[in-house]
Amino acid sequence: MNGAQSLIRTLVSCGVDVCFTNPGTSEMHFVAALDEVPEMRAVLALYEGVATGAADGYGRMAGKPAATLLHLGPGLANGIANLHNARRAHTPVVNVVGDHATYHQAYDAPLQSDIASLARPVSVWYRSSTSGRTLPADGAEAVVQARTAPGGVATLVVPADVSWNEAAPPAGPLPMAPPPATVPVEVVDQLAKTLQTGEPSVLLLGGPAMGERGLVAAARVAEDSGARLLAETFPAVHERGAGRPVVERLAYLAELTAMQLQGTRHLVLAGTVAPASFFAYPDKPSDLVPDGCEVHVLASARDDVVAALEALADALGAPASVTRQPPSRPEVPSGPLDAQSAAVVIGALLPEGAVVSDEANTAGIFVPGATAGCPPHTWLTLTGGAIGQGMPVATGAAVACPDRKVLCLEADGSAMYTLQSLWTQAREGLDVTTVVYANRSYAILAMELGRVGAGAGGERANRVLQLAPPALDFVALARGMGVPAWRSTTSEEFADHLRRALDEPGPALVEAVIGGPT
Amino acid sequence: MNGAQSLIRTLVSCGVDVCFTNPGTSEMHFVAALDEVPEMRAVLALYEGVATGAADGYGRMAGKPAATLLHLGPGLANGIANLHNARRAHTPVVNVVGDHATYHQAYDAPLQSDIASLARPVSVWYRSSTSGRTLPADGAEAVVQARTAPGGVATLVVPADVSWNEAAPPAGPLPMAPPPATVPVEVVDQLAKTLQTGEPSVLLLGGPAMGERGLVAAARVAEDSGARLLAETFPAVHERGAGRPVVERLAYLAELTAMQLQGTRHLVLAGTVAPASFFAYPDKPSDLVPDGCEVHVLASARDDVVAALEALADALGAPASVTRQPPSRPEVPSGPLDAQSAAVVIGALLPEGAVVSDEANTAGIFVPGATAGCPPHTWLTLTGGAIGQGMPVATGAAVACPDRKVLCLEADGSAMYTLQSLWTQAREGLDVTTVVYANRSYAILAMELGRVGAGAGGERANRVLQLAPPALDFVALARGMGVPAWRSTTSEEFADHLRRALDEPGPALVEAVIGGPT
Repeated sequence: MNGAQSLIRTLVSCGVDVCFTNPGTSEMHFVAALDEVPEMRAVLALYEGVATGAADGYGRMAGKPAATLLHLGPGLANGIANLHNARRAHTPVVNVVGDHATYHQAYDAPLQSDIASLARPVSVWYRSSTSGRTLPADGAEAVVQARTAPGGVATLVVPADVSWNEAAPPAGPLPMAPPPATVPVEVVDQLAKTLQTGEPSVLLLGGPAMGERGLVAAARVAEDSGARLLAETFPAVHERGAGRPVVERLAYLAELTAMQLQGTRHLVLAGTVAPASFFAYPDKPSDLVPDGCEVHVLASARDDVVAALEALADALGAPASVTRQPPSRPEVPSGPLDAQSAAVVIGALLPEGAVVSDEANTAGIFVPGATAGCPPHTWLTLTGGAIGQGMPVATGAAVACPDRKVLCLEADGSAMYTLQSLWTQAREGLDVTTVVYANRSYAILAMELGRVGAGAGGERANRVLQLAPPALDFVALARGMGVPAWRSTTSEEFADHLRRALDEPGPALVEAVIGGPT
Repeated sequence: MNGAQSLIRTLVSCGVDVCFTNPGTSEMHFVAALDEVPEMRAVLALYEGVATGAADGYGRMAGKPAATLLHLGPGLANGIANLHNARRAHTPVVNVVGDHATYHQAYDAPLQSDIASLARPVSVWYRSSTSGRTLPADGAEAVVQARTAPGGVATLVVPADVSWNEAAPPAGPLPMAPPPATVPVEVVDQLAKTLQTGEPSVLLLGGPAMGERGLVAAARVAEDSGARLLAETFPAVHERGAGRPVVERLAYLAELTAMQLQGTRHLVLAGTVAPASFFAYPDKPSDLVPDGCEVHVLASARDDVVAALEALADALGAPASVTRQPPSRPEVPSGPLDAQSAAVVIGALLPEGAVVSDEANTAGIFVPGATAGCPPHTWLTLTGGAIGQGMPVATGAAVACPDRKVLCLEADGSAMYTLQSLWTQAREGLDVTTVVYANRSYAILAMELGRVGAGAGGERANRVLQLAPPALDFVALARGMGVPAWRSTTSEEFADHLRRALDEPGPALVEAVIGGPT
């Protein structure tokens, strides 16, 4: 058995049975071995950023890692932005990168590069395998490292000769990663006392606290103590909708965050970090913790945050039942299509159990409000701020959850980073409906231009922020990759198209024209 | 004057007046400053790989650097693959990367990452500017470093506050980079003696030796001494066609390279390195220098290779006149369209002075032969092997050479990496004709699967190498980005469409269907 075969069998035995790939010559033994190990599902992406983002989406929804398979340094580089987002989401990913044969690296062939230097900024663990004797164990270790709380990208580099040479037999799963640390009872008790003072407090949630159990425990704490509940701006996975406790997210705009946190005396962190401004702005603070506010850590991302919240609720003697979001849906609106009416349409139609991959940016500002009372659903956000996440994450989520509808909300500017996702959705028949908001500009940058104090921008500056002319035709682009698509210019049309897309299984795209030049 | 304004003025005063960009919030002051410094032309790319590849194409053709402007670590990461190609091409590029404000970096905001670790593998020089006092000098230094022989990527990181704070006045150009080193006369004389032995010799050319002056000098050497002339597999810029000396390139396939070099006793390197296999293959050598062949260095990439070749020709007493390629063109063929007939069509129609950006891969194998006798033209190749270069390089070459027709030969698999190039071509009205060869597979990988000894591949392996179903519709994809396009399925159609595309100014795309499933 060669290294590639033994590695794939190892990954499968460790529970990793999906591989998002864009391979090259140095990965051909891995590709050939797919026929030997049918338990491993290979999903081809036409660009590496799709593969890594799909691994992120898969990992968030499956709660276990997918593998990637990337081609040398440049292939890895193409996938780094979405590995950066996965890193911020604490998503487990086994990031397999092919390399030249060990003995070939001395020749500095054209594709040779410093893979370690490229990989380390996004990896919690990095190893370049040196022999088929150790490769299976390296693979099993990568799975453990990816799954070690809070989860991360474990990069395993596989030189071509390590792939093709005879190898040790597949490794079984290693002892499970250590579970998240239990928060000491003294910490819990101390925080219970703090909250019981009745001083203005905020319980700030992130990570696993945004799942149903965490939200219920957090709501018990909040309702008993009077603390306000808030969530980090960009949670990896947020369970929301009718029947779930409600938590407002911190705003992206630091000015609004300051208003949300104003007057807070105690900020209790549960699975997240103290809020900082997304970007720096002249003469504005980076640290968003209000003056005079004390920051307390209930649980970091490495701790068992859900258990800590439950312990805190119990320590307060909070009752088990909490207020939950009542069901409600807006009516389908009529008239012109804009960001607001588009949001209402989505609120009217969002299916129960939907997974929403949200990279709508400025155009999506009204969507959380419009969908708050929709049947229970899952929200995935742009954790690391690296644009081009939404469509790949939707792709991977659909692989992880074949029985759920995936809705991808995508800004037109962001859509153009990893649009190749649509082809993978078509090839795999994935049940993803993509809404592209066409405002034909980098609207967020037009806003940021003013916020950073650079003024309104002259003609030449604004030309760099406008996506037209020429206007992108997303219907043509989607059809060019085998995905049916429609363009909507009124609320009625958008409702018709979205309903049609959601009713049919398989991928579809709706271009929602909400403004801008044509 | 703020840092951004002073930096742009500095770049312009140092001769850098084109900036390929995909900016973000941390770059907004740079964008705003575009209106203050109209001498700087900003070209928007919808993806960073387009911006960096365009800077490569521009630098190769203009002989001076363009700037990039990229957004933090993830934006840089998206551009790394084409910076890798630029590194291999020794293209001068001033790679400007925005960063968070210096004081903001302590907060580990979502987009924070280790930019230095990402940049160093592709950069000959790296500096993160710390203050507006030094920023203009840093910018001038970046230009010098990018232009220092043989040329490379100089990465300048500009934190947002360095951009927006008051800065020193613009720096004038620094003293020019040291010229390439002159090869000592003893080296030249020794090599003249070696060649005069009449033992089987090869003069292997690369870098600037592939320009007209270098080729003439090399041909003088070859014709006088009987040495054979060969070129590196992937030269950055190759001047060829009727009236120019002919040089065959080393093959991509190591088996063929071995045949080209068989029996060589002396291998004389002029502006390139000793040949190594592009990839490693089981039981095949990585080093392609034949046994018993001595390797001599006339000039490395850092030396003045053209002057060295001229000195060698003079030392041999070679006459000034050399054999040049006679003009010849094939007739437009008729009948089915395949890689061979498509090449003949291109040979029949290639315009004088065309710049060809060649990422046709397997589909392009017949093109060099079919175009050898076409009117003089320039050939740009995939220097670093990182796929997704062709269309961005064509874009940048068209910005550098507005009076020349640019022809981009693109494989369908490779086209999908940086297809967003088409939008930039449409926005800027660039005179680029793109031919996409649709064989609907990663044909090179299907071949490599066998070459690496992985066999023919089973059904699951081959599915990963096939680009259909669904078949990509490049006509729809191009039109979706504002570029007129046609699909050709016969030689006659291809000739009609290509003629039409070449006759009209501005961008156009022809999808040449040369096989594969539909």
